[in-house]
Amino acid sequence: MAFELSEGIAILERTPATFRALLGGLPAPWITCDEGPDTFSPFDNLGHLIHGERTDWIPRARIILAQGAPRRFEPYDRFAQSRESAGKTLAELLDEFTALRAANLDTMRSWKLAEAQFALEGEHPALGTVTLRQLLATWVAHDLGHIAQTTRVMAKRYRDAVGPWREYLPIVNR
Amino acid sequence: MAFELSEGIAILERTPATFRALLGGLPAPWITCDEGPDTFSPFDNLGHLIHGERTDWIPRARIILAQGAPRRFEPYDRFAQSRESAGKTLAELLDEFTALRAANLDTMRSWKLAEAQFALEGEHPALGTVTLRQLLATWVAHDLGHIAQTTRVMAKRYRDAVGPWREYLPIVNR
Repeated sequence: MAFELSEGIAILERTPATFRALLGGLPAPWITCDEGPDTFSPFDNLGHLIHGERTDWIPRARIILAQGAPRRFEPYDRFAQSRESAGKTLAELLDEFTALRAANLDTMRSWKLAEAQFALEGEHPALGTVTLRQLLATWVAHDLGHIAQTTRVMAKRYRDAVGPWREYLPIVNR
Repeated sequence: MAFELSEGIAILERTPATFRALLGGLPAPWITCDEGPDTFSPFDNLGHLIHGERTDWIPRARIILAQGAPRRFEPYDRFAQSRESAGKTLAELLDEFTALRAANLDTMRSWKLAEAQFALEGEHPALGTVTLRQLLATWVAHDLGHIAQTTRVMAKRYRDAVGPWREYLPIVNR
């Protein structure tokens, strides 16, 4: 399935509300649970998405669109949120993500991207040459992946509590 | 982690709003995409959850709480939604799920379950003896699993569109 901008935006603009509906006001154990050392809790997932809004998608799209030299992206820090989210509440992260995402989508819409621009290239520090279209498709899939990861982490809290149903719930065994 | 009723309800009461935030108003291809024959689209996931509200969780809890004979549950039809959702819109399913879930949680709250009741047993047609506590924990984990499944199915639409990023997105490879 090819990436199509309006379909992609439809996902991107919903993700903050999805996280708010899923996590807003939950008892703390659901927010802080994780899968062990160096894994993401729901709180960490949200912080990670916020870091992406600040440093990844739009900054990388700008590098591609500028077509200057170098076109190499900054490496992405997958654990930046442990520093950046320190001392913040979940409610603050939800508001921050909502505002950043809305501003970034406004920015992207203001570019009025033409078809030919989607094929423009940048240089990923590890993956090599990538296109703007691939970057934007990844933004969308990355959102969906972190909703899935967040719910998986939460479901695994009940791995033992479900008893024999564990056999029918692949999510708690992943 | 042991099942705790108020924590479980906190998830159960959020799931309809999570599906609404995630799917409400999306372009059709996001709603109907699936992973091949006999797999669930986002639309199917929602229909499956509705079928569970009607036939699974509360009816089974009633069987356990009645402690009559037999205590054996009806088998659950994992594909009932293809029949029951026929002709309905996504918006109708979202409303139906929201109403059924709210009514079922009202019912469960009205029982004012006492600690000893969580250990009461029923008979699953395939898994054997299960407790009310396990049934309720499964209701919660099942919700989370279907949010994860829904977003995985959606993310996989972009398996090829993400290009080399596929390597970093385990969700599109599952």
